[in-house]
Amino acid sequence: MASEISIASASRETNRFLWDLMNKIIIHEVGPRDGLQAEKTTVPLTEKMRWIEGVCTSGIDIIQLGSFVNPEKVPQMADTDALFQHFNKNKPAGVTLSGLVLNEKGLERGLACGVDMFCMGVSASETHSRKNTGMTSTEALGRIIPMARQAMTAGKNVQVSVQSAFGCGYEGPVNREKVLSIVKAYLEAGIHNISLADTAGHAQPLQVEDLFGSIRALDPSVILACHFHNTYGLGLANCYEALKSGVTFFESAFGGLGGCPFTKLPAGNVSTEDLVHSFQRMGLRKDIKLDVLLKVARQVEKYFDRDLPGFILKSGSIVDFVGESGLGEGS
Amino acid sequence: MASEISIASASRETNRFLWDLMNKIIIHEVGPRDGLQAEKTTVPLTEKMRWIEGVCTSGIDIIQLGSFVNPEKVPQMADTDALFQHFNKNKPAGVTLSGLVLNEKGLERGLACGVDMFCMGVSASETHSRKNTGMTSTEALGRIIPMARQAMTAGKNVQVSVQSAFGCGYEGPVNREKVLSIVKAYLEAGIHNISLADTAGHAQPLQVEDLFGSIRALDPSVILACHFHNTYGLGLANCYEALKSGVTFFESAFGGLGGCPFTKLPAGNVSTEDLVHSFQRMGLRKDIKLDVLLKVARQVEKYFDRDLPGFILKSGSIVDFVGESGLGEGS
Repeated sequence: MASEISIASASRETNRFLWDLMNKIIIHEVGPRDGLQAEKTTVPLTEKMRWIEGVCTSGIDIIQLGSFVNPEKVPQMADTDALFQHFNKNKPAGVTLSGLVLNEKGLERGLACGVDMFCMGVSASETHSRKNTGMTSTEALGRIIPMARQAMTAGKNVQVSVQSAFGCGYEGPVNREKVLSIVKAYLEAGIHNISLADTAGHAQPLQVEDLFGSIRALDPSVILACHFHNTYGLGLANCYEALKSGVTFFESAFGGLGGCPFTKLPAGNVSTEDLVHSFQRMGLRKDIKLDVLLKVARQVEKYFDRDLPGFILKSGSIVDFVGESGLGEGS
Repeated sequence: MASEISIASASRETNRFLWDLMNKIIIHEVGPRDGLQAEKTTVPLTEKMRWIEGVCTSGIDIIQLGSFVNPEKVPQMADTDALFQHFNKNKPAGVTLSGLVLNEKGLERGLACGVDMFCMGVSASETHSRKNTGMTSTEALGRIIPMARQAMTAGKNVQVSVQSAFGCGYEGPVNREKVLSIVKAYLEAGIHNISLADTAGHAQPLQVEDLFGSIRALDPSVILACHFHNTYGLGLANCYEALKSGVTFFESAFGGLGGCPFTKLPAGNVSTEDLVHSFQRMGLRKDIKLDVLLKVARQVEKYFDRDLPGFILKSGSIVDFVGESGLGEGS
């Protein structure tokens, strides 16, 4: 899935190992799932298909089609199985289809309809965990780990996450030791693709450096993913620090749509166009078609008939105008 | 002007020297100048005074009251002298009043009305330089350096800048060697307080690291300032990298208002509330009264009768709720 693009302007102080990692960054579009789940209007299947088809042709690596939850409780996600059935027959080579599962029933559904990559997680906030799953963090962990192992045994890619890893809209601070203890349990269970999700949008870059650095210290071979919301304007700053901290999987949503409905102050995910634009300005992932992503985001914006938070949607891209580094001939 | 606040969560990989620098960060509110200069409605003197009075009581270190330009060409800045006369008699101890000057006449006016700190600069983009000043970069540099020295001789603080240091809305990329050659001319003239201004909002964090790192390599004793616009959503990411690159002076505008009228796509400055909020989340400058800054930004928003771009204006602060690091007891 990784692309190998040369970096125009290697930072003088960043070590080579991290730069090599930066060359392997993966974009994971979660708009069809996290982008939509807080929206009250249920988007028709055909409209979702149109957006996902667009993302499929953009060069994005992974697309999260939906979550396997109770369709009566979350009508927005009722067509997740249908989306997988459709796109398993209609996706370009190289695109990975991911799905979020919360319980064993969801896993069964996902295995039945051809999910490539399973995402599942545990919240580090007890209040968020109970509101989201009805379980304590420990109970949830005890169920998620066997589920993850079952999916791995079935030959699937699996990414496990710690939700509310940087703070909780209800509880406030989240103990970093609790986040790391969940990560340790994942690592001990042999699961090495680990995401930290900033469900409440509370993360600040020094936390990002601290937590991802601590996880890499636990296991240097870990594959790290991040998921930030832009509630307080720090989404791209957190992605930038994640990049420098060795994170290679970045989750974002078209137009900056989104927010967890079980968060106190839901706010948009980092916008995929803004994320790709900032990476391309750094010389990374220039293979992704930003114009295609912008077209999709405009379709989504038109559907919801309101301005979405993404910056590039308003300002337009400068990648072609300024180039990949903007450092001029001297760089 | 510097505050000495302990840092809650020292990054494990950042060296001590930079952490010491981070403890000395200075906020420079440029809302009354750069925030307003693109606004078509001329704000009455009494309204400006109300906003500036608010900023004065917030704990912000430096406030830029205006620029000394031709009042017929820029009516918004016609009352700059009057503002200095008023606030020289009505400012709390510790607040520095800065003014932007473009030419010798402006410097004379500034010296006559009691400017504490003079800001002046040269654009690294020839097109921007000509549109803004009618001069080439070299001509502008030849006039700015003697002006800076005159102000220093008069016992004033002086900050010199390179405008369009990260790219130009007209020209696209700006040669980093040209930026550094202007900086070298400043240093050779004995001027050591140097700002890089991202007039077009083109900066990305790796450029920030590269340029400020290169300047510190030229002269480790330099005092560095930054000025970012949030055109492409990277304003706070750039401020964060500037912080880690040893920059101590940060320019921002209330509500995220602003934009240079001589830029192709003017967009807001980094919002002062967002900047202070992100610093306070890192444990820095907790002495600044964020609630007072938010009150000012709301007054400005009400005056212009439109939503301003600042995030904290919408989402509210989480500093008191989450604390300064959000890292929990384990940090």
